[in-house]
Amino acid sequence: MGFSERIERAIDRTFPATGLGGPARLDAALRHAVVPGGARIRPTILLSVAMACGDDRPALSDAAAVALELIHCASLVHDDLPCFDDADMRRGKPSVHRAFSQPLAVLTGDALIVKAFEVIAAAAPAAPERAVQLVGQLACRTGAPHGICAGQGWESEAEIDLSAYHKAKTGALFCAATQMGAIAAGQEADPWEELGARIGEAFQVADDLRDALCSAQELGKPVGQDDLHGRPSAVTRYGIDGALGRLDDILAGAIASIPSCRGEAALAQMVRLYADRIVPKAARARRAVPGE
Amino acid sequence: MGFSERIERAIDRTFPATGLGGPARLDAALRHAVVPGGARIRPTILLSVAMACGDDRPALSDAAAVALELIHCASLVHDDLPCFDDADMRRGKPSVHRAFSQPLAVLTGDALIVKAFEVIAAAAPAAPERAVQLVGQLACRTGAPHGICAGQGWESEAEIDLSAYHKAKTGALFCAATQMGAIAAGQEADPWEELGARIGEAFQVADDLRDALCSAQELGKPVGQDDLHGRPSAVTRYGIDGALGRLDDILAGAIASIPSCRGEAALAQMVRLYADRIVPKAARARRAVPGE
Repeated sequence: MGFSERIERAIDRTFPATGLGGPARLDAALRHAVVPGGARIRPTILLSVAMACGDDRPALSDAAAVALELIHCASLVHDDLPCFDDADMRRGKPSVHRAFSQPLAVLTGDALIVKAFEVIAAAAPAAPERAVQLVGQLACRTGAPHGICAGQGWESEAEIDLSAYHKAKTGALFCAATQMGAIAAGQEADPWEELGARIGEAFQVADDLRDALCSAQELGKPVGQDDLHGRPSAVTRYGIDGALGRLDDILAGAIASIPSCRGEAALAQMVRLYADRIVPKAARARRAVPGE
Repeated sequence: MGFSERIERAIDRTFPATGLGGPARLDAALRHAVVPGGARIRPTILLSVAMACGDDRPALSDAAAVALELIHCASLVHDDLPCFDDADMRRGKPSVHRAFSQPLAVLTGDALIVKAFEVIAAAAPAAPERAVQLVGQLACRTGAPHGICAGQGWESEAEIDLSAYHKAKTGALFCAATQMGAIAAGQEADPWEELGARIGEAFQVADDLRDALCSAQELGKPVGQDDLHGRPSAVTRYGIDGALGRLDDILAGAIASIPSCRGEAALAQMVRLYADRIVPKAARARRAVPGE
């Protein structure tokens, strides 16, 4: 079974189309927030690392992958709220608060965060030590002071610590992806942090490029949000060509950082593949014509 | 060391007055949401049950108690948001969104939920099997379909399942209190569910009485919210004297449900003590003059 199928099946088991049996609109909002998903990049990286490390507890790896994706989905639901991005659309359909209501969007984000930890606990019996490490790692990368909540929190500060901001806002869940993949397969987490951090940096730069270069239709959400909200961006800082050069450097560093393991080559190949995919078309076109 | 001191010390370690080292306003909002607290009823019940069961891992019991209180605080922060109760005050001081901002209130609730699971994971090494059970139990009582998120979610339904609504909205965290206390001390969780459920019912009725009878100053938050929001209430259903009678019946059932254990008598004593405390003064005055 491919990673994509493993992820979608595990998400379907967690939030079946028939609902969980609680209040029906919350059930519908939860499903709306997670299915159909985006590229499922974080859980795919998690499973790739787990596989490279032997993946000897596939049910635990699947649980970790779902948990990480649920946290990501929760962050999108809350980020879209009127008091943050006030985004009407997400993944080409109405955002949760537009489709349901603000109260249900707040609750959906909350319930997704909780479900993430519940899914790991439910897969724990076979390997409780790994499961508590997964809970600790996911929590650290999600909350404060180093997780995505803190990342978003930096936007409420008069002076932003840019490095802490990017690490927490985008990097944290990529570090969670590589480190949780290793933990699920019974390996040390620390050697996998750098790979996650570098993939996170690459995605941050790619996201800045997309925000600056893509249309709202391509993106399935409003564009120009960085400029609009005065948010720090690699494009504002380095220009488009500078940002593209930076992306190449980061990805080379990511590949170089992969710890020695059975699946090292396959993992490097995956990073290269994603590198091609995450660069927006408009940027690729510029790249093909360097004199432009 | 008394329960209250154990709880406050453990909360202080989790959110020190000096902050966590993340964005300063989020740090301040997190501390604002948890210190000074309310009555810390849920963690006190948790520690009481843990003690009645032997409390052989006090660090794990403390972690479980803090985790439960953080989930309760998170629910207050999100419930106070303009899209829910729109409450300006909480525990006699401005609610988090009034003192900080709506974005920081959303993030504070999110980060508190996450920290709850992180605290349990951090206390896990000594007893990972118990820790994952605690994570599972807390998640089940917090999220959907049976936790407080689902409880709040029922308020967005056209037709409310009243029994499911009360169980989830108020009962869930009291069940978590008794069951997590047992788990932390290495005991089976199931026999402790009924005690939690009955304490939860009692608090729901007491809360309905407070909402109907107390002043905003006594309560430290707006009153008459049930009527205002058309929420189901024991007072609307049974009248004030009927609700008081129901409270007595429920508490007698709670005491009868306590499983046989070393600390059974002390636990019954605690329930009686709380029973006196949770009845609003105005209701006690009515009770003293039955002909009124």
